[in-house]
Amino acid sequence: MQSLRVALGDRAYPIHVGPGLLDAPELFAPHLGATAAVVTNQRVAPIYLERLTGTLARAGARVVPVVVADGEQYKDWRTLDQVLDAMLAARCDRSVTVVALGGGVIGDLAGFAAAVYQRGVAFLQVPTTLLAQVDSSVGGKTAINHLRGKNMVGAFHQPRAVIADVGTLSTLPERELRAGLAEVIKHGLILDAAFVAWLEQNMGKLLERDAPALSRVVLRSCELKAEVVAADEREQGLRAVLNFGHTFGHAIETGMGYGSWVHGEAVGAGMVMASELSLRAGLITADDARRARSLVAAAGLPVAGPAELSADRYLELMSVDKKAAGGRIRFILLEAIGRALMRDDIPAELVRTVIDGCSGRGTAAFHAA
Amino acid sequence: MQSLRVALGDRAYPIHVGPGLLDAPELFAPHLGATAAVVTNQRVAPIYLERLTGTLARAGARVVPVVVADGEQYKDWRTLDQVLDAMLAARCDRSVTVVALGGGVIGDLAGFAAAVYQRGVAFLQVPTTLLAQVDSSVGGKTAINHLRGKNMVGAFHQPRAVIADVGTLSTLPERELRAGLAEVIKHGLILDAAFVAWLEQNMGKLLERDAPALSRVVLRSCELKAEVVAADEREQGLRAVLNFGHTFGHAIETGMGYGSWVHGEAVGAGMVMASELSLRAGLITADDARRARSLVAAAGLPVAGPAELSADRYLELMSVDKKAAGGRIRFILLEAIGRALMRDDIPAELVRTVIDGCSGRGTAAFHAA
Repeated sequence: MQSLRVALGDRAYPIHVGPGLLDAPELFAPHLGATAAVVTNQRVAPIYLERLTGTLARAGARVVPVVVADGEQYKDWRTLDQVLDAMLAARCDRSVTVVALGGGVIGDLAGFAAAVYQRGVAFLQVPTTLLAQVDSSVGGKTAINHLRGKNMVGAFHQPRAVIADVGTLSTLPERELRAGLAEVIKHGLILDAAFVAWLEQNMGKLLERDAPALSRVVLRSCELKAEVVAADEREQGLRAVLNFGHTFGHAIETGMGYGSWVHGEAVGAGMVMASELSLRAGLITADDARRARSLVAAAGLPVAGPAELSADRYLELMSVDKKAAGGRIRFILLEAIGRALMRDDIPAELVRTVIDGCSGRGTAAFHAA
Repeated sequence: MQSLRVALGDRAYPIHVGPGLLDAPELFAPHLGATAAVVTNQRVAPIYLERLTGTLARAGARVVPVVVADGEQYKDWRTLDQVLDAMLAARCDRSVTVVALGGGVIGDLAGFAAAVYQRGVAFLQVPTTLLAQVDSSVGGKTAINHLRGKNMVGAFHQPRAVIADVGTLSTLPERELRAGLAEVIKHGLILDAAFVAWLEQNMGKLLERDAPALSRVVLRSCELKAEVVAADEREQGLRAVLNFGHTFGHAIETGMGYGSWVHGEAVGAGMVMASELSLRAGLITADDARRARSLVAAAGLPVAGPAELSADRYLELMSVDKKAAGGRIRFILLEAIGRALMRDDIPAELVRTVIDGCSGRGTAAFHAA
């Protein structure tokens, strides 16, 4: 097991990464109240719920399991209310600890439930997907979706700890493994050129689920993200770089309806678009843009957006994106492999050109594969 | 106009109290983003919305009005979503300022909308009821109700300023004026014996809406509450004293269905019960309990709970109250006029006796009046 710490003053918390952590009550015990409400979904529950419940019981907690439907389309008011209702029915008071067992959707949902239950209770992230282990479980962003946009309703609410058992990645469907790699690639592209070079050499191992390679990727991604979060907890500035690929990606997810594209796929295509925009804005070389695109392709992720979505629709969706300020669209662009910056002065015509050039090709083939 | 400051470090904010403040753009301007989403209800809107909208426009903001139904029964998911949806439809980004124009329900609802809209935006409290001016607009507690309990879903989210125009109290219905006095009495009973003595002398003036008397009451209540909030923002300890009368009161409100008793009425009866419990627990004298009861009666508030609610039902409702910890019910009791303490070791039998002794008598008469 390796551990690191997210430096957030009185909200600082540890991240533990390694195999077999689900069976280690001593990792959970320091963070538990009398009751642990374990929020998970119908896919994860049969595999890991009983094991985690046993561990939490050994750590001394009464366990209230809450099993919700699986999928981004359930990250909504209704499912949130199911969680809150179950906690109220079980008479959980403010000393409860909410435990998120699952992927990014569960982490966002359970984290937001913890943020608003009786005005805020403690929570633990126990991510079981690569996406959640390398990205969404770290940083305290929680949310649910709204019909008018993704993650439009939420809170900043830091977990008391992130416990990432890399052993759970063995049961992860192929498509989700690849989706998780999108955020890994993102961390490299915006923050760490050496990590990008390593990924270019080791993508094959990662897709074969080589355990040491996966552990390295989880730990390095958490380190990179933790540094950004510690410097800018509430997304006032620097943290916005983590949205690289996400402005386009969210438009794809929203425009196609949640669940049609998984988050990492949309981010994959979004990163290719953002790299292409960086090239056309004169920020990076054609070779840099090619490397970004190749890495996304090597992870088996789409390098183009869906043919169904017009440039107008993208622009419409992106202008209500929460990263917009004062009506302008803010883009996170690359200025080199491993370095990002924010720009809000990109002409709409340039954006249209990039979208038109990055749409439709290969998408159907990808989704059929 | 008089002003004070709630000392909360980087979340410190001013409270302005006086007549005519709704017409003072210079009070609003320092706290406004490009857009102001004014949340109000169908009762307040015809009286004050146009006036405030004009003031905000003069302060330079685009105004998005959101008018919701009036009443505690609408402080729920559905109305919250109405607010969030209107803000999204108007393309509000994170620079929006939510302005709560109305009573405690509007403040709680709009404040919670601000807490969760795109993970948190700024908000201003513009309270138009005595209850909101003396209590609920100060302190950052926001929430909506859940079928299983009042204020069960919410957040701590401090306003950027509270602007209390006492001129708005002239249009307040009699029943709401009396309800607001419940929280005024509470502040005196738990924190300031001299203020209690002043209230005993001046209750008549307050009921006649004597302007200087009302201004004094709003300012002193805000001062008392601000001190408590500054010392304990997130209700870890001291702040719990502000729940005096509220554990019983919330049980009455929930048990009777929201809207049947207004909050201040339930708190009035709740304070009499809590004083009676303080007496029976050997903490205060019979004369102190009598003074508390007389002051509640002088404000025209009920001094007994509803006949329909059994002691068992109270205990059931109070044990899911968020002030419960580890299954025990915490009561805020008096140890003198002007001094409160928390006790979680009160025998259930004593609580039953007090409830039975404080139920039904005079309630029907009050509500018929």
